[in-house]
Amino acid sequence: MKAALKLAQKAADEGEVPVGAVVVCDGKIVGRGRNRRETKKNALHHAEIEAIEKACKKLGGWRLHRCDLYVTLEPCPMCAGALINSRMKTVYYGAPDPKAGSCGSLINLFALPYNHQPALVSGVLEQECADILRNFFRELRKKRKEIRKLEKSRVEEQS
Amino acid sequence: MKAALKLAQKAADEGEVPVGAVVVCDGKIVGRGRNRRETKKNALHHAEIEAIEKACKKLGGWRLHRCDLYVTLEPCPMCAGALINSRMKTVYYGAPDPKAGSCGSLINLFALPYNHQPALVSGVLEQECADILRNFFRELRKKRKEIRKLEKSRVEEQS
Repeated sequence: MKAALKLAQKAADEGEVPVGAVVVCDGKIVGRGRNRRETKKNALHHAEIEAIEKACKKLGGWRLHRCDLYVTLEPCPMCAGALINSRMKTVYYGAPDPKAGSCGSLINLFALPYNHQPALVSGVLEQECADILRNFFRELRKKRKEIRKLEKSRVEEQS
Repeated sequence: MKAALKLAQKAADEGEVPVGAVVVCDGKIVGRGRNRRETKKNALHHAEIEAIEKACKKLGGWRLHRCDLYVTLEPCPMCAGALINSRMKTVYYGAPDPKAGSCGSLINLFALPYNHQPALVSGVLEQECADILRNFFRELRKKRKEIRKLEKSRVEEQS
């Protein structure tokens, strides 16, 4: 999860919502991903998808039944579905996502009778995973406030 | 849907489970996709994902709120989630999928309180969409039976 946190920090540095993920097989990291939705201008570029994509390439097949995924934020329905489709063994996540979380928050897709049900461990380094998101959104609000202040003072100067 | 059916046929010709999808914006096709899970050795290469990916590239952004998606088979949880994430306006599908369908069969993810709920139309050219899958699996069973027969006759010859 520490490796996933590093990737989340990298996403934050790029101005993306900080989420990071790694796929681990036999104790080794075989895929890394970070959220790059804005950079890639693509709704599909979540951390988990990138990590699964890289793991499939590295291992040369689409069945990742010997692999585990570690992700800093509870997976959304797309990513939870991708984890089912890729036959992931166990999914470990950090912070819950009350808005889109699909491994227990809004629904637990792993508990439905799909043809594969990954095992699930939640709350891994939860505090650190939540903090990185909280700090990112706090900074974002601060920046937006400064921009609004700057715009207001410009309007006042011109009038 | 006829364009999606053509893509499904192309997938069948490549030995893939025949599913095809297109994204339509302002009456024009902006993304095409077909199932290529085996060819690409990747669990993520479903028809819908490919079509969304291409539409995002073509339109230069990740929000497809002016677009509709047509797909021959009811979306799985991953694809239903991708359609929510990409803010798809309406999803039209052909045949239901009782094993993994997540737009009404196992669950309807579009009815949950995610931050976007695509509109849903099912049963579009349902018969044609179901037939292409049925024919594919019939052929597959036939081929497997022939292989088993051939193997059996070889064993008998050798003994």
